[in-house]
Amino acid sequence: MIPPDHPRYRSLVTREHLAVCVKTGIVSPEGLTAHGRGEAFDYFLGERTTESALLAERTAAALILGARNPVISVNGNTAALAAREIAGLQKASGAKVEVNLFHRTEERVNQIEDLLRSAGAEVFSGPAERLLPLSHDRAWCRREGMFSADVILVPLEDGDRCEVLVNMGKTVIALDLNPLSRTARMATLTVVDELTRALPNITDACRNLTGAERMQLLACLDNNYLLSEAIREMTMRLAHALD
Amino acid sequence: MIPPDHPRYRSLVTREHLAVCVKTGIVSPEGLTAHGRGEAFDYFLGERTTESALLAERTAAALILGARNPVISVNGNTAALAAREIAGLQKASGAKVEVNLFHRTEERVNQIEDLLRSAGAEVFSGPAERLLPLSHDRAWCRREGMFSADVILVPLEDGDRCEVLVNMGKTVIALDLNPLSRTARMATLTVVDELTRALPNITDACRNLTGAERMQLLACLDNNYLLSEAIREMTMRLAHALD
Repeated sequence: MIPPDHPRYRSLVTREHLAVCVKTGIVSPEGLTAHGRGEAFDYFLGERTTESALLAERTAAALILGARNPVISVNGNTAALAAREIAGLQKASGAKVEVNLFHRTEERVNQIEDLLRSAGAEVFSGPAERLLPLSHDRAWCRREGMFSADVILVPLEDGDRCEVLVNMGKTVIALDLNPLSRTARMATLTVVDELTRALPNITDACRNLTGAERMQLLACLDNNYLLSEAIREMTMRLAHALD
Repeated sequence: MIPPDHPRYRSLVTREHLAVCVKTGIVSPEGLTAHGRGEAFDYFLGERTTESALLAERTAAALILGARNPVISVNGNTAALAAREIAGLQKASGAKVEVNLFHRTEERVNQIEDLLRSAGAEVFSGPAERLLPLSHDRAWCRREGMFSADVILVPLEDGDRCEVLVNMGKTVIALDLNPLSRTARMATLTVVDELTRALPNITDACRNLTGAERMQLLACLDNNYLLSEAIREMTMRLAHALD
């Protein structure tokens, strides 16, 4: 029982939810640690969507809306934290939702697909093949899904898969709270924001962007600028603590 | 199976070790998330002992050596990550080692005590009482241990317990990778360093400090300075990423 007077109550409740998701198999134990890393980076961001993150989110929407075969890649943490938000983005964008796991078993894939469906998503499912040049199980995907996607949204990604996807010529949109990570630096576009804040913002932009706004966002896409701004926000926040 | 070519191999192996410790019950699932937070802060520190952290570690040794009844408080993560280092510090300092858990069951207490003993520590054990004014289970401790300690080393602590211990008049030494945390700000002395680097440094200082050095370290203790230096290190590292 977490006491409601605990100053990090919300954060502890999320951790407890994820701990339950480990018991059911949705989240891998290693996923909990990854979540903790994200929490710390979010702490440095002030646990809010920064101006540059919102620009990245609007640009992400422009990329997804302009895609021929957009795919949202979902892992255990993403499903546990934001299944509804994933379903919402799918409805607004028409993107495929496909499960892709580092710690992969058929049972976990099925559980996560079921969770996504119960949150209202249509899951691009069926037999997967080992199609990506990776030594771990994130290599598994579907030929008509991720493998042939032109634009792929990867929340909470491994740096090496991000690199492989970029090398395959795909436009990769990363959601990553660490602006220094390999994923953040390798991706075409990186959204440095927390999942449940970022996904609804991308969804809103999918619904509301005009054609002219989309053109302008794409013309101005500069991931180095976005990452620099995220780092600058964190630096300022830290430096402020010195006052 | 984590591929050895993964750029975060060491970090992933530690996470896997902790995941196994969750299965055995030593580590709580929530402890994994806390570990991830620590990982992220350590990343900002450059995963090394900074100059100010070493000063804090030497000062910690001076405080422990001057104590009447020093106690090292051990939780699941600390035992899983650094049982040997805890035993080493106990040998060098004569401090009591006492288990104190947020997610407390008798079974977990026993398991963690056994792990510490197998790593060479003498554990201050026996029936605990609810002696600290806290709404959660970290309130449980022993009258002749933590409750009557004058100096207490708390690795990976909750901010509210740290505050309670300070309010009881104790000298509290925190090991905390987040220099902005409530624990870090409440403690008498905060070591902003990773456990398996910090504990051996404190142990070495316990063995090697002269009486004059101890006096000088205690006279110069300034936790605001140490925290500022830790924040400055992180800020510089982040700002460097902008170059």
